[in-house]
Amino acid sequence: MRSHYCGDLRKEHIGEDITLTGWVHRRRDHGGVIFLDLRDREGLTQVVFDPDREESFTLADSCRSEYVVEVKGTVRGRPEGTVNPDMPTGEIEVLGKELVILNKSETPPFQLDEHQQVGEEVRLRHRYIDLRRPEMQEKLRFRSKVTNAIRSYMDEHGFLDIETPILNRATPEGARDYLVPSRVHEGHFFALPQSPQLFKQLLMVAGFDRYYQVAKCFRDEDLRADRQPEFTQIDIETSFMNEEEIMGITEKMIRKLFLELKGIDLGEFPRMPYSEAMQRFGSDKPDLRYPMELVDVADLMAEIEFKVFAGPAKDPKGRVAALKVPGGAQLTRKIIDEYTQFVSIYGAKGLAWIKVNELEKGVEGLQSPIVKFLGAEVAMAIMERLGAENGDIVFFGADKEKIVSEALGALRIKVGEDLEMAQCEWAPLWVVDFPMFEETDNGGLTALHHPFTAPSCTPEELKANPLEALSRAYDMVLNGCELGGGSIRIHNQEMQASVLDILGISDEEADDKFGFLLNALKYGAPPHGGLAFGLDRLIMLMTGTDSIREVIAFPKTQSSACMMTQAPGEVSAAQLRELNIKLRKTP
Amino acid sequence: MRSHYCGDLRKEHIGEDITLTGWVHRRRDHGGVIFLDLRDREGLTQVVFDPDREESFTLADSCRSEYVVEVKGTVRGRPEGTVNPDMPTGEIEVLGKELVILNKSETPPFQLDEHQQVGEEVRLRHRYIDLRRPEMQEKLRFRSKVTNAIRSYMDEHGFLDIETPILNRATPEGARDYLVPSRVHEGHFFALPQSPQLFKQLLMVAGFDRYYQVAKCFRDEDLRADRQPEFTQIDIETSFMNEEEIMGITEKMIRKLFLELKGIDLGEFPRMPYSEAMQRFGSDKPDLRYPMELVDVADLMAEIEFKVFAGPAKDPKGRVAALKVPGGAQLTRKIIDEYTQFVSIYGAKGLAWIKVNELEKGVEGLQSPIVKFLGAEVAMAIMERLGAENGDIVFFGADKEKIVSEALGALRIKVGEDLEMAQCEWAPLWVVDFPMFEETDNGGLTALHHPFTAPSCTPEELKANPLEALSRAYDMVLNGCELGGGSIRIHNQEMQASVLDILGISDEEADDKFGFLLNALKYGAPPHGGLAFGLDRLIMLMTGTDSIREVIAFPKTQSSACMMTQAPGEVSAAQLRELNIKLRKTP
Repeated sequence: MRSHYCGDLRKEHIGEDITLTGWVHRRRDHGGVIFLDLRDREGLTQVVFDPDREESFTLADSCRSEYVVEVKGTVRGRPEGTVNPDMPTGEIEVLGKELVILNKSETPPFQLDEHQQVGEEVRLRHRYIDLRRPEMQEKLRFRSKVTNAIRSYMDEHGFLDIETPILNRATPEGARDYLVPSRVHEGHFFALPQSPQLFKQLLMVAGFDRYYQVAKCFRDEDLRADRQPEFTQIDIETSFMNEEEIMGITEKMIRKLFLELKGIDLGEFPRMPYSEAMQRFGSDKPDLRYPMELVDVADLMAEIEFKVFAGPAKDPKGRVAALKVPGGAQLTRKIIDEYTQFVSIYGAKGLAWIKVNELEKGVEGLQSPIVKFLGAEVAMAIMERLGAENGDIVFFGADKEKIVSEALGALRIKVGEDLEMAQCEWAPLWVVDFPMFEETDNGGLTALHHPFTAPSCTPEELKANPLEALSRAYDMVLNGCELGGGSIRIHNQEMQASVLDILGISDEEADDKFGFLLNALKYGAPPHGGLAFGLDRLIMLMTGTDSIREVIAFPKTQSSACMMTQAPGEVSAAQLRELNIKLRKTP
Repeated sequence: MRSHYCGDLRKEHIGEDITLTGWVHRRRDHGGVIFLDLRDREGLTQVVFDPDREESFTLADSCRSEYVVEVKGTVRGRPEGTVNPDMPTGEIEVLGKELVILNKSETPPFQLDEHQQVGEEVRLRHRYIDLRRPEMQEKLRFRSKVTNAIRSYMDEHGFLDIETPILNRATPEGARDYLVPSRVHEGHFFALPQSPQLFKQLLMVAGFDRYYQVAKCFRDEDLRADRQPEFTQIDIETSFMNEEEIMGITEKMIRKLFLELKGIDLGEFPRMPYSEAMQRFGSDKPDLRYPMELVDVADLMAEIEFKVFAGPAKDPKGRVAALKVPGGAQLTRKIIDEYTQFVSIYGAKGLAWIKVNELEKGVEGLQSPIVKFLGAEVAMAIMERLGAENGDIVFFGADKEKIVSEALGALRIKVGEDLEMAQCEWAPLWVVDFPMFEETDNGGLTALHHPFTAPSCTPEELKANPLEALSRAYDMVLNGCELGGGSIRIHNQEMQASVLDILGISDEEADDKFGFLLNALKYGAPPHGGLAFGLDRLIMLMTGTDSIREVIAFPKTQSSACMMTQAPGEVSAAQLRELNIKLRKTP
């Protein structure tokens, strides 16, 4: 129907007869002439209707916001003084000759450029209007481009796009699995996959060598700003490659994406062992845009009287660390109180601090509620270790290791953001050498990644000292977000059995949950490994948005009233009968 | 780890030192030398181990089928007389120098080249082994290529890849929907989509202009040879294009696929109205590879005494048709009995026939149990209308129109296959001008496509005579299979309301099921339309396979014992409690 997209018209089209289709973005009546700003997915063009052409003028006059029209006309340069340099089509306009109203619109619940004046709920309820906003169009087009670029890259590197099932076998242990009752097998259920992990490993056992998929995954959890119950994963697995090769090929992909789609060279990604990341940044996904680091001071604190510090300093599972904030002495009491509140989220019982006012005066130059408990010698030794300077503030954490690392690690980023301390726009890295296991609260062990991750030691070493064992896992981190994670998998059945044994998973449970994989490992499984990227997260980062609802066309919402397609609904008694299920009464 | 894929080695690699990884396809001990046929996804290469290199020789000797190994060696030409012209790598072999056994394998339940000797159930239970068969590798790689080619084509034509949700809102009317109980909204359910229809129309209302998706769809039905409960659809929708343009752009895509991936030029697809397809071929997806056509003979039969023919001939809802099979007079009584059985599947109460033995003798030259009831004049008039010749057989159907068309339409293809009458390998066409509605058994109306399909008439004409109204739908048919189907959609709210009204869908039900779309039509919906292709079907056709299980990596199976990942499983009481559901006792 159209000859051009509205947004594509430029000076070189002047004089051409063209046909446009699109939405009336704005209608203005100015000096006896009607101006329609016509919008399609490529942008806006101004169309002018003169009273000379009575029919089209009258129709144009009757147009309202969001009417859908077809316009035939001629492109002409805008009269001097009316050129709009802010619009890509601002040098031209179209003299409208014929107008067809293809569809009318009721007055929309909000104008596209006034969307901020209505609540998100209204916009979600009228999602088809909200999606017309140029920013939303832009983000979803960008998402399409990213997916395309990833697919091309994987294809060029010999990865096959193989679909894995959405309806999987449910198991009694599948917490957070969505369950789907089967009509055919009464009383039996499918489960929606949290990831295609099992299947991609089977594809390696089947010899496909290189696999990828843009895969839908599911987790039955409450909504969060950055999490939806269904999400999209770039899922990759390959045989006969080691971790260096897998990190290499996927790092190259992400760098290519940023370079080609955003013109940004991320540079080579540094590697950092998990232990170093926890030590220096209190996080397994450190945000390296901020230069501040956690510094351990337990050795300086162990002998003081003050139990708040001395206790954790002497506890093998404790940690005492300091975070120096350059220029932070300016922080007000109110802000420090807010930070104290903030670290309490992570379990910290308080937030000790020292302001460095006049270091040349020694301990007298320090302002702090705690210096008197530390003593001058310890306080000055800490200042020296931190390389503190006048104008700095130092925060302290002293507690169980996990609490201190998490609390100061999070504070580090919060202060960094508040004081605008980022030293670069993008800070990627690989975190490697993760522990195989971590202790659970009840003293058991749990896999830090998942039970298919290969250790970097022998089965004997693993059994002898599981908490010391490192895994062959790797996480790609960008600006403090985990973009992707993966590992070399166990391809040997004995090793897999050892790991499950250490995790206390019974043979029966193992057989029930992973039996198909365990069996497959008996029949010639190749060495293999892989990685998964969260696509939603990647797009959020690349487009600089905090809300996952801005990068998904039809997100789920909390309220079922909000958007009828996007929340669960009611079903009939007959449907339930057919599925052989009853609803319980709410207790 | 590898320097080359096994299947990639050729004469030009002779003299090179290479590293291969793969599976031991076969191990032979011949003349004091060990031969391993090493297999990876690209093919097989023969590796030779001499006793001179004791270590690798001993290891090679210990290898068994499906062991995973890494081999370092040198490519050399095969000795004269041992070149294997049937193998792409048959001119060379690798002299093995180092061998590492990466993983052992238990004796596999079947050898890859002996898969036909075990039942499909064994192969499905060990799917990871079955998928190693070169034919399965080939089919799934082909599928990946087709998907890639489709994505590139859509991308080049400005279609955006936009993901639509898998978890949709359930409605009380959603028969055949898979239901997913929500943990968060107690007693409420999501439904898995039978297609993204609603969402793609909303994307058009949202102004995305051109959308496509390789979309997973779901239907809770029993398995069939060509149908799985989850299937993949190439889903396409566009605004501001008419049916000619949509058919043009998608026909070009399918032609390009066949040309580039199979070297086949399908030619331009002819168009055929639905009524003509039913008339001439008894099917809305006629297989045009076979030349035979149904010929109506009701007018010749109306006045005869024989009620079996005269009844339907006089019934306005009846049909009497003949199918002439050239050369069919050779068919034995036994085969004709089988065909009689065959048409009974479609409700035909019998299968009358006339063999044309010696037409020059007039009615005497016809052999048939029914000629005596027809009379000589009518019999010869039929022969004349059919252009019958000696050696032909003519089959007859006389019943309700639907039964006759379906029965003779199916017989036409069966006979065509049996007698190998195909005149070409590929016969594509578009079927167009479908009726909007068809009558249901209880006298109501149902939409032939779906209730969003636009009619080619005004709302007034539609209401006045709904059964006469044609729709703007189109189906792409290839070799008697419906490859894809679509339509121009209703973009006008009044028209949509008329159609729902004619279908007897109450306002409440309409609001419940489609309210979101009906609302969207009020706010500037553009003219739009689209199409969906069944990807599984397309791959089956292109690879010449009859079983959908050959084109899907992990198909569902009937028996839950068959393949643990591929059938529904049991869940725990705690899981059900959390979902607020109870299992009913089987009645």
